[in-house]
Amino acid sequence: MNTKSRASWRHRLHEIIYEADTKVGKTFDIVLLWVIILSIILVMLESVPSFDAKYHDQLNIAEWIITILFSLEYIARILVVKKPTKYIFSFFGIVDLLSTIPKYLSLILGGSHFLVAVRALRLLRVFRILKLVRYMGEAKLLTRALQASKHKIFVFIFSVVILSVILGTIMYLVEGPEHGFTSIPRSVYWTIVTLTTVGYGDIAPETAQGQFIATLVMIMGYGIIAVPTGIVTSELTAISRESNNTQACPSCMDENHADNAIFCHKCGDRLNEE
Amino acid sequence: MNTKSRASWRHRLHEIIYEADTKVGKTFDIVLLWVIILSIILVMLESVPSFDAKYHDQLNIAEWIITILFSLEYIARILVVKKPTKYIFSFFGIVDLLSTIPKYLSLILGGSHFLVAVRALRLLRVFRILKLVRYMGEAKLLTRALQASKHKIFVFIFSVVILSVILGTIMYLVEGPEHGFTSIPRSVYWTIVTLTTVGYGDIAPETAQGQFIATLVMIMGYGIIAVPTGIVTSELTAISRESNNTQACPSCMDENHADNAIFCHKCGDRLNEE
Amino acid sequence: MNTKSRASWRHRLHEIIYEADTKVGKTFDIVLLWVIILSIILVMLESVPSFDAKYHDQLNIAEWIITILFSLEYIARILVVKKPTKYIFSFFGIVDLLSTIPKYLSLILGGSHFLVAVRALRLLRVFRILKLVRYMGEAKLLTRALQASKHKIFVFIFSVVILSVILGTIMYLVEGPEHGFTSIPRSVYWTIVTLTTVGYGDIAPETAQGQFIATLVMIMGYGIIAVPTGIVTSELTAISRESNNTQACPSCMDENHADNAIFCHKCGDRLNEE
Amino acid sequence: MNTKSRASWRHRLHEIIYEADTKVGKTFDIVLLWVIILSIILVMLESVPSFDAKYHDQLNIAEWIITILFSLEYIARILVVKKPTKYIFSFFGIVDLLSTIPKYLSLILGGSHFLVAVRALRLLRVFRILKLVRYMGEAKLLTRALQASKHKIFVFIFSVVILSVILGTIMYLVEGPEHGFTSIPRSVYWTIVTLTTVGYGDIAPETAQGQFIATLVMIMGYGIIAVPTGIVTSELTAISRESNNTQACPSCMDENHADNAIFCHKCGDRLNEE
Repeated sequence: MNTKSRASWRHRLHEIIYEADTKVGKTFDIVLLWVIILSIILVMLESVPSFDAKYHDQLNIAEWIITILFSLEYIARILVVKKPTKYIFSFFGIVDLLSTIPKYLSLILGGSHFLVAVRALRLLRVFRILKLVRYMGEAKLLTRALQASKHKIFVFIFSVVILSVILGTIMYLVEGPEHGFTSIPRSVYWTIVTLTTVGYGDIAPETAQGQFIATLVMIMGYGIIAVPTGIVTSELTAISRESNNTQACPSCMDENHADNAIFCHKCGDRLNEE
Repeated sequence: MNTKSRASWRHRLHEIIYEADTKVGKTFDIVLLWVIILSIILVMLESVPSFDAKYHDQLNIAEWIITILFSLEYIARILVVKKPTKYIFSFFGIVDLLSTIPKYLSLILGGSHFLVAVRALRLLRVFRILKLVRYMGEAKLLTRALQASKHKIFVFIFSVVILSVILGTIMYLVEGPEHGFTSIPRSVYWTIVTLTTVGYGDIAPETAQGQFIATLVMIMGYGIIAVPTGIVTSELTAISRESNNTQACPSCMDENHADNAIFCHKCGDRLNEE
Repeated sequence: MNTKSRASWRHRLHEIIYEADTKVGKTFDIVLLWVIILSIILVMLESVPSFDAKYHDQLNIAEWIITILFSLEYIARILVVKKPTKYIFSFFGIVDLLSTIPKYLSLILGGSHFLVAVRALRLLRVFRILKLVRYMGEAKLLTRALQASKHKIFVFIFSVVILSVILGTIMYLVEGPEHGFTSIPRSVYWTIVTLTTVGYGDIAPETAQGQFIATLVMIMGYGIIAVPTGIVTSELTAISRESNNTQACPSCMDENHADNAIFCHKCGDRLNEE
Repeated sequence: MNTKSRASWRHRLHEIIYEADTKVGKTFDIVLLWVIILSIILVMLESVPSFDAKYHDQLNIAEWIITILFSLEYIARILVVKKPTKYIFSFFGIVDLLSTIPKYLSLILGGSHFLVAVRALRLLRVFRILKLVRYMGEAKLLTRALQASKHKIFVFIFSVVILSVILGTIMYLVEGPEHGFTSIPRSVYWTIVTLTTVGYGDIAPETAQGQFIATLVMIMGYGIIAVPTGIVTSELTAISRESNNTQACPSCMDENHADNAIFCHKCGDRLNEE
C-alpha cells in the first residue's frame, strides 16, 4: 500500500465520517444516530432493576458491542481528521471520548458505567448530521437571544439567590426544625422550591405565620417569573424585528435597514422602492 | 320516488346537516352540539363507580341512544355529501366514526367503550357550527403563531429532552434507589416534573447534594420556561404588527397606517376607502 | 324641618358619602375603607376554630356592630342618591347589600354568615374612594388588554378543556382505578393539575407508561402556558405602542399618529415637527 | 502625628475601602467579597444540626473572627467617610451594622445570631465592588422596567388578593374542615398556593365539587400568570426600543437609526460620529 492509496483511503473515510454529501456518508450518519439513541435506551433499561434482573447478560453484551463500535468510531475520527488535537479537545471530541470510557472503567469500578448517559450529548450531532441548516438557524437565534440577555439573566439569578437566602433564614426562624425546616440550607431549598412555583410539598409551612410568609414568597415568585420571560421575549422580539427587513442596499448590499428607510444607513445611497 | 325528488331530498338534508343558514339547519347544529356535550358528560358519569352502581342501566340506555343517533348522523353525512370519501378521510369524518365504534366494540371487548371520550373532539365542530368566523380568525392567528415558531419549539423540546436525560442520570447517581430514584427513566421523569415546575412531590431529593442539584434544576427550569413564552410572544407580536393594517397609500405607497387613518401620514393624500 | 333644609341635608350627606373633595367626605371614605378591612379580618378569625373558641362572643358582637354600620350606610346611600334603583342594581349596590344580608340570614340558617366574605369585593371601592386616577388608568389598560384578547383566550381555554378531557380519558385507561385514577372526571382533574403545572401530588402516575404520558402532558403544559402569556403580552405591547405617540394634530387634534407620520391621518394637514 | 498626616492616613484608608482604582483598594474589595461569602456559608453550616454537633467550637470561633472583622470594617468606614451620618443611615450602612449586631446579641439572647444571615445583603456590594458598570446598567434596566410597571403590578396583586379571599371562602364552604380546609385563612392560603401554580399538595380538594372549583382556580391562575409577565415584557420591550438609538440626523433630525448607521435613512446625509 503506497502513500497515495493510503491518503485516498483516509480521504474517503473522512468523507464518510465527517460529511453527508455522498450516499455512503449520509447512511453512516443516520446509522450512527440510531446507534446513539439505542445506546441511551440500553443504559436506561439497564438501570431498571426488574428489567436488568431478567436481561442482564443480553444488556451487558449489547452495551459492550456499542462501546466497541463507539471506540472504533472515535479512533477512526482521530485517524482521518487533519488536525487530530483540534478534534480531541473540541466539544464533540470530548463527548465522544466520555461516551466510551465509563464502560471500560466499569471493569475496575462498579457503577460508574451509568455515566455513559453522557452519550445523550452525542444526540446534539443530529443537528450537524442531518445538515438541518434551518434548525441550526433557529438554534442560533435562541442562542443569540440568550447570549444578548446573559448579563440581565446573571443579575436576575444573583438577586434570586440572595433573596432566597434571606427568605430561607426567616422561614427557618419562624417555622423551626419542628416543622421540617431543620436547617438554613434546607429552608433555602424550600424557598427556591416555592419561588420557582415547583412546590413539591415535601416541606410545607405549618404555622399560621409560616403560611403567611409562604403566601408572600409565592406572590413574589409569581411576579419574579415574569422577569426572565420578559428578558428573553424582549430580546427575541428585538432580534426578529431587526431581521424583519431584508431589503439590501443596491450599492453596498448592507441589510437591516429600518422599515421606513429611504437611504442606506451605510453608504448613503438611495434604496430601491420595494 | 323519482331521481329528481331524491336529489332534492338529498339537497335539503345537505343543507340541514352541513349548512347553518336556514332555521332548520341552525336548529340541527345547536341540537347536535348539546347532544355531543351530553354524551361526554354521560361517559364521565359512567366512569364514576358510585354513580355507575346506582344508575348503570339508565346510563347504558342513554349511551346506546346517543351512539345510534351519532351512527345515523354519520350515515346521513356520507349519503348527502358530494364526495363521501373526502368526508370519510377528513379529520371530522374520522372523529365522527371513532365516536360511535368503541360503543359497538364494547359488546365484544369490555372496557373499550371509554374510548368514546374521543367524542370530545367533536366539540371542535362548535367553531364551524356556530359560524364563529371571529373565533376562527383568532384560532387561525394562534395556529399561525405556533406554526411559525414550530422549528424553534422543536429545537427547544429536543434540548429539554437531552438536558433531562443528563440531569436525570446525575440525580440517579447522586440520590440512588434508596431515596426513590429507583431507575434512570424514573429520574428523568423526576427531572421533567421539576424542570416544568409541576413538582408532584411523589419523588423528592432527600440528600443535601441531591437538594442542591434540584435547586439548580429548578432555577434552570425557571429560566427555560421563558423560552417558549418568548418564542410564542415574539411571534404573536410580529403577526399582530403585520396584520395591523396593510393598506397602502395610492399616491406614495406608504404602508402601516393607523386603523382609522383617512389620510396618508407620509404625503397627506386621501387613502382609499376599504 | 322644611323641604329645603331636608334637601340640603340630603345634599350634604351625598357629598360625604359619594364624594371625596371635602375633608369630611375624605375622612368618611378612609374610615369606611378600614372598617371594610377590619370586617374581613373578623370573618377570617371567626373561621379559625381555636380563635373562635376563645373569643366567640367578642367576635360576634363586633360582627353585628359592623353589619349594622354597613346596613345604615346602605340605607343612607339609597336615601341620598338621586336614582336609587340605579344604585341598587349597580355592581357596588349589590355588593353592599350582599355584605350585610348573610349575617341576618345566619340568625335563621347557621353557617351561611361566612358568605359575608363577599365583603372583600367592597375593597374594590378603594380605587374609587382614594380617587386613584392613576391606578384606575392602569386597571383600565389591563382590562382593555384582557378585553382585546377575550376571543383568543376563549379559544385557548376551550382547546385546553377538550385536550384535558382526551388526555384524562387516556390516563384513566392507562393507570386505572388501582393507581388513584378512580374515574374520568378525576383523571381530567389530574390532567388540569398537571397541565397548569400546579402538581399537587395527591394523584400521581405510578406505572411506567403513565409516567411517560405524564411527561408528555407536562411538556405540553410547559408549551401551552406560553400561549396566554403571549396573547396578553402582545396585546399590552400593542396598546403601549399606540399610546406611545402623544402628538396631536394642530388642525383636528387627533392623536395616535405613527411615529414617523408627517401628515395627520385624519384631516391630512401637516403635523408640527417635534 | 500632626493633623496633615492624619488627614492623609484617612485619605488613604478611604481610597482602600471606598474605591477600587488602586491595586490595594481592589484587593481589599475582593478579600471582603470572599469573607462575606464565607460568613454566609458559616451561618448555614452552623444551622445544620449534624454539622454543628461536630464542629460547634470551630464554627463559633470562625463566626467571632468574621464578626470582629466586620465590626472593624464598619468602624473604619465611619471614621474615614466625610459624612458619617449619611453612610450610617444609607442602605449599606444599615446592612453593615445588622451584619454584626446579631452575633453580639447572641451573647445575651440565644438563637438570634441566625439573623446574621442578613449578611447576604452585603453581597449586593459585589456590583459596586467590582465596578461592574455593565451589570449595573442591566440591573438599572430591570429596576426601571419594574419601576415603570409598579402601578400595574400593584393593581394586579391587589386584585389577586381580593380574588383569593373570595375563592378561599367559597372553598372553605364547599370542602369544609373535614377535608383539610380548617379555616378561611387556611383556605385563602390554599387558593394562593393553587393560583400561583405552586401546588404543595399539603391541602388538596377531596370532594368532586371542590375539585371542580379547584380546576377553575387553576385555569384562572394559568391565565393570571400571563398578566405580570405581559406587564414586565411590554415594559422591557418599550425600554429596549427607546434606548436602541437616540441619535438624531443633523440634517433632518430623524431618529431611530440602526446602531451601525453611518448615513441617515431619511435624507441620506452623514450622521455625526458618536
